[in-house]
Amino acid sequence: MPQQGSGPRPVAAGSIGRFDHETDVLVAGFGCAGGAAALEAARAGADVIVLDRAGGPGGSSAASGGELYLGGGTPVQKACGFEDTADDMYAYLDAALGPGADAEKLRLYCDGSVEHFQWFADLGLEFNGSLHDVPTWLTMSEDGLMWLGENAWPYDTIARPVPRGHVPATRNFGGWQIMEKLAAAVGAAGAATHTDTAAGALVVDDAGRVVGAVARRYGQDVTYRARRAVVLATGGFVDDEKMLADHAPHLLGHGKVSDGSDDGSGIRMALALGAATRNMSITQIALTVLPAFAVRGMLVDARGQRFINEDVYPGLFSVAAVRHRPAPYWVIVDEEGYEAVPEQERWGVRPSFVEETLPELEQALGMPAGALEATVGAYNRYAEHGEDPYCHKNPRWLRPLRPPFAAIDPRLGFFGAPGTGVTGFTLGGLRTTVNGEVLDVSGSTIPGLYAAGRTSAGIHGQGYVSGTSLGDGTFFGRRAGRTAARAGG
Amino acid sequence: MPQQGSGPRPVAAGSIGRFDHETDVLVAGFGCAGGAAALEAARAGADVIVLDRAGGPGGSSAASGGELYLGGGTPVQKACGFEDTADDMYAYLDAALGPGADAEKLRLYCDGSVEHFQWFADLGLEFNGSLHDVPTWLTMSEDGLMWLGENAWPYDTIARPVPRGHVPATRNFGGWQIMEKLAAAVGAAGAATHTDTAAGALVVDDAGRVVGAVARRYGQDVTYRARRAVVLATGGFVDDEKMLADHAPHLLGHGKVSDGSDDGSGIRMALALGAATRNMSITQIALTVLPAFAVRGMLVDARGQRFINEDVYPGLFSVAAVRHRPAPYWVIVDEEGYEAVPEQERWGVRPSFVEETLPELEQALGMPAGALEATVGAYNRYAEHGEDPYCHKNPRWLRPLRPPFAAIDPRLGFFGAPGTGVTGFTLGGLRTTVNGEVLDVSGSTIPGLYAAGRTSAGIHGQGYVSGTSLGDGTFFGRRAGRTAARAGG
Repeated sequence: MPQQGSGPRPVAAGSIGRFDHETDVLVAGFGCAGGAAALEAARAGADVIVLDRAGGPGGSSAASGGELYLGGGTPVQKACGFEDTADDMYAYLDAALGPGADAEKLRLYCDGSVEHFQWFADLGLEFNGSLHDVPTWLTMSEDGLMWLGENAWPYDTIARPVPRGHVPATRNFGGWQIMEKLAAAVGAAGAATHTDTAAGALVVDDAGRVVGAVARRYGQDVTYRARRAVVLATGGFVDDEKMLADHAPHLLGHGKVSDGSDDGSGIRMALALGAATRNMSITQIALTVLPAFAVRGMLVDARGQRFINEDVYPGLFSVAAVRHRPAPYWVIVDEEGYEAVPEQERWGVRPSFVEETLPELEQALGMPAGALEATVGAYNRYAEHGEDPYCHKNPRWLRPLRPPFAAIDPRLGFFGAPGTGVTGFTLGGLRTTVNGEVLDVSGSTIPGLYAAGRTSAGIHGQGYVSGTSLGDGTFFGRRAGRTAARAGG
Repeated sequence: MPQQGSGPRPVAAGSIGRFDHETDVLVAGFGCAGGAAALEAARAGADVIVLDRAGGPGGSSAASGGELYLGGGTPVQKACGFEDTADDMYAYLDAALGPGADAEKLRLYCDGSVEHFQWFADLGLEFNGSLHDVPTWLTMSEDGLMWLGENAWPYDTIARPVPRGHVPATRNFGGWQIMEKLAAAVGAAGAATHTDTAAGALVVDDAGRVVGAVARRYGQDVTYRARRAVVLATGGFVDDEKMLADHAPHLLGHGKVSDGSDDGSGIRMALALGAATRNMSITQIALTVLPAFAVRGMLVDARGQRFINEDVYPGLFSVAAVRHRPAPYWVIVDEEGYEAVPEQERWGVRPSFVEETLPELEQALGMPAGALEATVGAYNRYAEHGEDPYCHKNPRWLRPLRPPFAAIDPRLGFFGAPGTGVTGFTLGGLRTTVNGEVLDVSGSTIPGLYAAGRTSAGIHGQGYVSGTSLGDGTFFGRRAGRTAARAGG
């Protein structure tokens, strides 16, 4: 056995004399999943300690936009005049998160969604009963509900289109507010939080049961005994360049959607025990394209080809571009489309090129002569009749584009913050049961070991929709916490 | 610890009284990688036993086309009048197998390629000094050398274009011949082969060293002690639907390029010990499209868009289609292009539709009106001048397409064998050193454990070229066998 703290390899319980701390349930990582697990375990009567490597709770969850993908008839949906069912929610997510969405987890997630909304409300989060009706990454309004692609083709033919993006009532990013309320609830439930403490290795007894962890705090090893269970909730692995290179190299060199601590440590600790993984190559991807411009014009690739209905959930047009099309990408929009977006909703985005004719614009963009003319020509011929037989964008957004034409470069970023035009985070992780038990490569559970949030593979298949990370992180975090509190008893 | 043979979980050496067999080096799997490892280990003086779950050696290697990607100035290249260097070979493979090709393995592979050719020649394989000069999946000739995309854009700008596909002198698929010669050499070197014997779990001693394996033979457990090392060479995991769903779901439901035994067992056995993996989502993909037709016309997606220079290595246009474009795919060719391919080289491929005009053809294919007209129109306008600014196909293949036009459907398959139009196998596997040592998630070697072939992640990044599986399987199999023979001594 290796020395304590020397890496993710497991440490034998027998090699540790007296543990520095003892608890029933040890949770590694205090983002939304770890917080939810800690809260439910404590409410179920367990002694709980939550570790976080940062100076306070929050993690990447606190840095997020705060969207929660919820539905099936929540009070917010009703206040906005929408009827929804768990079945419609399931049908949409099965398509949008697929192929390969986890049917069992997804079914529970949709059936439990109204109750899960109430759990957030009970934390003290408030949601306004108003709808943000234009496609966007984040509402800058205080509307409580937003569309996340449910009303775009082909999803509008698969399930009744109902908006399910729930946003807490706060200006700016809502993630910090969710984590503030959750952290307060965790404290009130009696769980202890040890900050600046990074779990580094699991402790295993002779029977192969996980009975604790060795963490690092200010350069020293700290040992934790967990009488019932350890819950891994350290996030994904977008900040670990080596894991990224091995499993999701398409995000190398791009912006990371994280607080910098998604180091894959929880995944590696479990892998060292023979845990199984799923979807390690799958990532969320966000192209720094403003959906409000894209829907009013078109998104094209380096060859000037259009490839998707621009009114889909913007993460979907981002994946369609970044994973499947030659870069660079451009938003082509005309003056009418550009001016239709109010100044304060433009996020500082300005065109790189404006030209009176398409031949001039395609030349400016380095495309073969005729490329954009063919694409825009085909688009306009059908848009005239409110049709889009190539990509099926909703007629609401269809009209022929007229000169002058502008090209917007995603690499210039939002609010004057240039980059590669691409940011993302990882979705793959440990194989878990619906109760958060970690499975090994034989398909058996690893006794005493649980995982939730982006350390685990959640409801997702190959796709992603905003609000499903905070959503399934808390939903299955809660289940893991409840099960962990009873484990080994 | 679980019972013997109950799954991939490791078995404690102490739980096995007397082993049924003892050897220095135990090799699991007798395809090209296992055979190469066994041969070199035996030649280095080790006692060797090779297990294979089938009734004889061969595995998926024997079912393959037999191409070997070799270069740097082999006798066959010289006989065909080509000068080559290890650096040009490296530059091409780094680009074609990338992004993310393994630089250290690739460097060794290219620098050692002429010597590795000689190793094949010494097995008794013969290669004719003649070149097959037309893009194809497999030569039906007995030419010893073929292009594998080296002369297509952008690769012809990255490295001096030299053909490196080496094919043993045999009609039909050459894989069986390679395995026949290799199996004979393994036997002559004194290694024993146990057929109908599937390794199922590794045996580990108290210090964490791999010291053997438990296999199944006719429903009974058979135990093997390996005094020096175990080499895992059981192939990839394309035949395990569960692993495919978790790691490379895009191949689910498609044809498998394997002998049916690529069950991922070697990968799972090592994962149970905490081994690390790489590139588990990456696969070879072959669209059932005849390159000879594609280069003379064009490949388009469901929207009638063209997307790649059709003269690339055909696995590359296959990945470009299957992983990145909406299906179905079509080869559009005119009468002159179709007739230019001799009957015996058409592999039974016939058009599904032949029309006098493009509007008729696009309607027959269910494309929006104008889709094919725009694509073929743009192609023809430039082809007239020997140019292809969109995709950069070599001028050799460029001329305007003229009526009548034909559309060929890959789903009809070759030689009247219909399918999904797609076949493939997995490229991801265990992280290994250049000597085949299996690495765990801490980056340390797992003592006594080696892997080669598609059980390991080889020279590949995100890309693939024919001949690199037999190529790196044997090359690094040999290195693993040599190192294993000296292990633990």
